[in-house]
Amino acid sequence: MSDRPIDDPVAPRIAPEIIAVLGANQAFYDAHERRDIDAMRTVWEHSDRVVCTHPGWPILRTWPVVEESWRRILGGPGRNQFILTNEAVTIHGDMAWVTLDENLVDAGGTGTVAATNLFVRTASAAWLLVVHHGSPVMTR
Amino acid sequence: MSDRPIDDPVAPRIAPEIIAVLGANQAFYDAHERRDIDAMRTVWEHSDRVVCTHPGWPILRTWPVVEESWRRILGGPGRNQFILTNEAVTIHGDMAWVTLDENLVDAGGTGTVAATNLFVRTASAAWLLVVHHGSPVMTR
Repeated sequence: MSDRPIDDPVAPRIAPEIIAVLGANQAFYDAHERRDIDAMRTVWEHSDRVVCTHPGWPILRTWPVVEESWRRILGGPGRNQFILTNEAVTIHGDMAWVTLDENLVDAGGTGTVAATNLFVRTASAAWLLVVHHGSPVMTR
Repeated sequence: MSDRPIDDPVAPRIAPEIIAVLGANQAFYDAHERRDIDAMRTVWEHSDRVVCTHPGWPILRTWPVVEESWRRILGGPGRNQFILTNEAVTIHGDMAWVTLDENLVDAGGTGTVAATNLFVRTASAAWLLVVHHGSPVMTR
């Protein structure tokens, strides 16, 4: 039983399209955590305009190049667990950008990556990733 | 006199809107190089949805916070010169993303920052920056 009635005017109302974008964003991190290249393929748009900048990497462009990078990353040793915090979503027309902190926990220790994820809404109202940019946050 | 006649079918034709996006992108780097906070203000959308992640920094959100970061950066010591390479532009509806390498030349040496810049087209067909994400490219 919920603490609040469903129609409680104090409960925050999150627009369904925001929930859909956050779901697409979560699917990206789930695919990474599970090291599931098929799931990762489903998350991305397969086009020449996709761009992926992994932390510390040069810019990668076009789906075949981006896919190959994920194949190597997901096929490599070690596991990453992501604790996602500080998420913010903006929707503008058929595009949405999500910014968040990826708090990584792995055998090598912990660290935070600041991420920008850009999604495009398809005709069937799915959200596909077209740009991912991650950068290590330096501790001060 | 040009090497090619203007109507040479072999000459690449760049769409006017691509040129407009590249102009907005260049204005961002010009403002930075000239340390011109007023010019930097003109480049950005002044809204709560803007996001700026400087290389190594945590995510900054909302225009007042982003503006304050630029005020500090542009008011600080040293000068940056940017050689921009590897630019690519994609336009989707009223949004455009530009990815490029910022090759920095300053007193401290040189380095490359991979950048993602997201622009929104206004009703008056200007392109305003809403997301900037820069990350240092590690040399291997």
